[in-house]
Amino acid sequence: MQTPDTERKIQQLAECGPLKAWSVIVSVLGDFCIARHDSISGRDLNALIERIGLTAPTMRVALHRLKRDGWIQTEKKGRDAAYRLSAMGWRETQAVRDRIYATGQPPAGPAQMILAPPSVTAADFAAALPKTAAPLAPRTAILAGPASGLPPDYWITPLDPGTAPAWVADAVAAPDLRQDYTRLTNAVADVLTATPPQDSLSLSAVRVLTLHHWRRLRLRHDDLPDILLGDDWEGARARQIVMTALDRFPRPSPGDLAA
Amino acid sequence: MQTPDTERKIQQLAECGPLKAWSVIVSVLGDFCIARHDSISGRDLNALIERIGLTAPTMRVALHRLKRDGWIQTEKKGRDAAYRLSAMGWRETQAVRDRIYATGQPPAGPAQMILAPPSVTAADFAAALPKTAAPLAPRTAILAGPASGLPPDYWITPLDPGTAPAWVADAVAAPDLRQDYTRLTNAVADVLTATPPQDSLSLSAVRVLTLHHWRRLRLRHDDLPDILLGDDWEGARARQIVMTALDRFPRPSPGDLAA
Repeated sequence: MQTPDTERKIQQLAECGPLKAWSVIVSVLGDFCIARHDSISGRDLNALIERIGLTAPTMRVALHRLKRDGWIQTEKKGRDAAYRLSAMGWRETQAVRDRIYATGQPPAGPAQMILAPPSVTAADFAAALPKTAAPLAPRTAILAGPASGLPPDYWITPLDPGTAPAWVADAVAAPDLRQDYTRLTNAVADVLTATPPQDSLSLSAVRVLTLHHWRRLRLRHDDLPDILLGDDWEGARARQIVMTALDRFPRPSPGDLAA
Repeated sequence: MQTPDTERKIQQLAECGPLKAWSVIVSVLGDFCIARHDSISGRDLNALIERIGLTAPTMRVALHRLKRDGWIQTEKKGRDAAYRLSAMGWRETQAVRDRIYATGQPPAGPAQMILAPPSVTAADFAAALPKTAAPLAPRTAILAGPASGLPPDYWITPLDPGTAPAWVADAVAAPDLRQDYTRLTNAVADVLTATPPQDSLSLSAVRVLTLHHWRRLRLRHDDLPDILLGDDWEGARARQIVMTALDRFPRPSPGDLAA
C-alpha cells in the first residue's frame, strides 16, 4: 500500500503526456528484454499496464495491433502467454537504444549548415531536408550528423555552433518540447523525493512511466539541441534526472511483478 | 618609339576599365611614394598621365579636387611643383597596401556565417551587414574577417567553406567582377609577351595602368572570394600575372620620366 502522497506523485508522472498503450508496451519490451529472445509474461505485462492506469481491454487491442504490424511475437506458456519483440521490433528498439539510455550529453558530433541556391523555393527546400534538420531561414538549415542525399548544388559546411541566440534555440528545440521536458523533470524529481513505493509493481510502474515519457520526448529530436544548447537546456536536465530515476528504480526480475 | 603592336597592347591595357584621373593619381602616388614624405614632380606626373592617354586639363582638375578633399599636398619647387600624399592620403593608401601588393593568396583567415532571426526583414538585414559581406539567403550572409557591431541576436558562427558551389561563387564574386579580372589578365599577358617598351615613360605607363586597374578591382572586394574560391578563380589568376608585370616593370627613379 502506498501513501496517498506517493500515489499522487506517481499519478502526476503518468500525466506527463499521452500514454498510448502500444507505445507503452514497446517501451516496456525494449526496457525489460535485454537479450534478443527475452520475453515478458502476459501476467507481468498485464499487472504493470494496469498499475499505470491503462485497462485490460486497451492492452488487448494494443497487443493485437503490435502483433499485426510485426512488432511483437507471442508464445503460449501453459495457461499464460509470453511476449517478445519480433526481429523488426528488436532492430527498431536497438537502433534508438543508445539515444534513450545515454547517461551523458551526446559527444558534440558533426553538425552541418545547409544552404540552398536562390533558385530553390522555401517549400522545395523544406521537402529536400532530412526530417531532423532545423530550418533557420527560407534557404538555410542546420543538421546534426552527416548530410547526405541532398541536391549537389546545396552548400554544406561544417557547423561550429558557439553560443546560439534564443531564436536558434527555439528553432532546434521548440518551446513545447522544452515545456514537456520541464514537466517530466519536475514529476520525476517529485517522485524521487517522495517515500519510495513499497512493492515491486509500483517501483516498476515508476520506472516504466519515467522511461516511456523520456523515450517519447527524446525520439522527437536528434542530437542537434544537445550540440547547440549544451548541458543546460531542458532536455539535458531531464536526461540527468531520468537516468538517476532509472538507477534508483531498476528493472524487476522476470516473474516478479504479478506475484 | 614603340612598335605599333606594343602600342596597341598598351592601349588595350588602358581600356581595361575606367581611368578616372583622380583615382589614377592616387594609384601613382601610392605606388611611387614609398616613404611618408616622398613626392613626385609635376613634370613627371604630367608626362605619365599624358602617356596613358589623359589630358593636361583633366589632370589639373583632378589635382585640384584631390587637394580640396585633403588627399594630396603640393609644394613649389622652383618653376615646378611636387606632389605628395597628405597625412590622410598616406593613411588611406597604407591601409590597403597589403591587399594590393600581396603576391600570394591571402592566408585563409577567419570567415563567418551570419544569420538573423526571423523577425528581421531582408532589407534590415542587408542594412545591418558590413559592406563586404555576401548575402546568400534573405537572412543569411557570409563575411571575411571578424564580425563586429552586429545586433546581439544575430547568430555568428565560424565558416569553414570547403568547396563552394557555383551560386555561392557568384554571390561572393559577381560575374562582372570576374569578367573584368579576366580582361585585365588577358591584357597584361599580351603586354608581357610583346616587345617591351623602349623608354622609361612607357615602361612606367604599363606599370601604372596594370596597377591602377588591379587596385580598382581588388578594392571592390575583401578576402572572401579568395577564402572561398582558392587560387583558381579569375581574381587569383589576375593577381599572379599583375605581380609578374609589376616585377618586370619596376617603378622608375625620381625625375626619370620627363627627361
